[in-house]
Amino acid sequence: MSANARSTTRPRQNPFDLAKFLETRTAAVNAALDRFLPSEKTKPATIHQAMRYSLFAGGKRMRPALVLAAAQACGGGEADALPLACAVECIHTYSLVHDDLPAMDNDDYRRGKLTNHKVFGEGIAVLAGDALLTQAFEVAAQAKGWPRYSHRDLILEIAKASGSLQLIAGQVADLEGEGKKTSSAQLKYIHERKTSALLCCSVRLGGMSANCTPAQLRALTDFGYHVGLAFQVIDDILDVTQTSKQLGKTAGKDTKAQKATYPSIVGLDKSRKIAAQLTDKAFAALRVFKGGAGALEALADYLLNRDR
Amino acid sequence: MSANARSTTRPRQNPFDLAKFLETRTAAVNAALDRFLPSEKTKPATIHQAMRYSLFAGGKRMRPALVLAAAQACGGGEADALPLACAVECIHTYSLVHDDLPAMDNDDYRRGKLTNHKVFGEGIAVLAGDALLTQAFEVAAQAKGWPRYSHRDLILEIAKASGSLQLIAGQVADLEGEGKKTSSAQLKYIHERKTSALLCCSVRLGGMSANCTPAQLRALTDFGYHVGLAFQVIDDILDVTQTSKQLGKTAGKDTKAQKATYPSIVGLDKSRKIAAQLTDKAFAALRVFKGGAGALEALADYLLNRDR
Repeated sequence: MSANARSTTRPRQNPFDLAKFLETRTAAVNAALDRFLPSEKTKPATIHQAMRYSLFAGGKRMRPALVLAAAQACGGGEADALPLACAVECIHTYSLVHDDLPAMDNDDYRRGKLTNHKVFGEGIAVLAGDALLTQAFEVAAQAKGWPRYSHRDLILEIAKASGSLQLIAGQVADLEGEGKKTSSAQLKYIHERKTSALLCCSVRLGGMSANCTPAQLRALTDFGYHVGLAFQVIDDILDVTQTSKQLGKTAGKDTKAQKATYPSIVGLDKSRKIAAQLTDKAFAALRVFKGGAGALEALADYLLNRDR
Repeated sequence: MSANARSTTRPRQNPFDLAKFLETRTAAVNAALDRFLPSEKTKPATIHQAMRYSLFAGGKRMRPALVLAAAQACGGGEADALPLACAVECIHTYSLVHDDLPAMDNDDYRRGKLTNHKVFGEGIAVLAGDALLTQAFEVAAQAKGWPRYSHRDLILEIAKASGSLQLIAGQVADLEGEGKKTSSAQLKYIHERKTSALLCCSVRLGGMSANCTPAQLRALTDFGYHVGLAFQVIDDILDVTQTSKQLGKTAGKDTKAQKATYPSIVGLDKSRKIAAQLTDKAFAALRVFKGGAGALEALADYLLNRDR
């Protein structure tokens, strides 16, 4: 069962071939990540095995896909966007490795596989996360830089989205909110930072890699923010409606950890409506591309109707 | 008692006023770090309190001092070098916060104060380390960039020195070597990465901030490598010769953790000789500055003769 949040105000048929887009882009991203990272045999082998274990654990590569789709919408090429796509995937993976630690969410499974610390031990898992975070900046620095956007802009974009005011702020608020009564405003604060910030950063980086106009960058920012929030609302919904097997990770863990979620605060039906409204706003932001953002539209549609 | 590794081949009197240099530079670095970091009240307050707790826990600011001293040797100004000095201190502090975690060195005290996870809990300590690492790149990106050295060069310099082939590699090898028989070659491998890499990076960044010549950069690299190794040998010596009170951290912890150290492998006397030889090599590297590297010379002398 999907999250059933499909909007009624948009056409239900998207002519864009998303399956092919995701297949080719995922292959390109995986090949690039393989090139950027030291091999499993590089000394000390343990850390590179641990980094690669989580990086190649079957992630959906949604953030890299958003980078590449945004680049395409702005007329940019795949090769220019790839280092930035790989950088955001390194950031995303590091955040998962650390979030899964016993001191945080204490999760044994992720994407149907044992979590990093269950395989390599806690010490190496901490270091593998650190190494992936560091690697993200090394990889991003290998982008070529553009007339409107310098390496300085790219690094600041990634550092701010991942830092103590955004991605990490979301994780802290999430950690501190466990077992406490959370308002819908607080939950929005968490989701904006824990998910929306990096998704927003992804589409902005894609635009930058195409030397996009300021108007395009504003549209991508607006799109990324709303897709990111919708994405997390869906995640909350799936956590209560799907089984662990369907999700490939522990289902019902938010409820078990007494974590606030959209369904627990506003109910399942209203959560679905909120997700649909957010996606409508995301779609509205794409008008500036005048139909040239097929990949971004298809991705948003997919993210809202996924079942895992 | 100092580590008594003073070389006999160099003049014992250095006319440079190191105390004044350290006092003024530490004040400048502390003020800059305070400006660069979100305040303790910035939401979520916990993470900013935790970041600042370790960043302002009385660290000796040796790495920032090396950045500023190298900049001075190359004719650069303090203002240009400060963002890079702050970036390396953020990296250094993050590495200490994570190294102290129960899953790693499991240390309760650092610089005479409770370690980060003892005050804020393990989850926040992991995140505070992550945030400091991320902050380092944000701060470094705020450097101005120079004709010979772009932001790309600066970011790559920091990312490589801190990544899975250097700083993190050293920590992994250290973690994996506990309780095992370690050769002096393996110990050198650990020290080169765990300490030398970031010290070397510090003086190189200082040189870059002064738009140094390639010959100056080579000299600084050579200097940083040897000072870094000497610094770690001294650390090993102090761990077995000083008390916890003198060190401001748990003494004898290397022995307790069955960690290989220079004294445990080659003995105390030979360790002191090695440290002195390394420092002589570091001094030799400074000849290219023709006496204009007083701050670097004084720092090297200080690092080799410190008692804590």
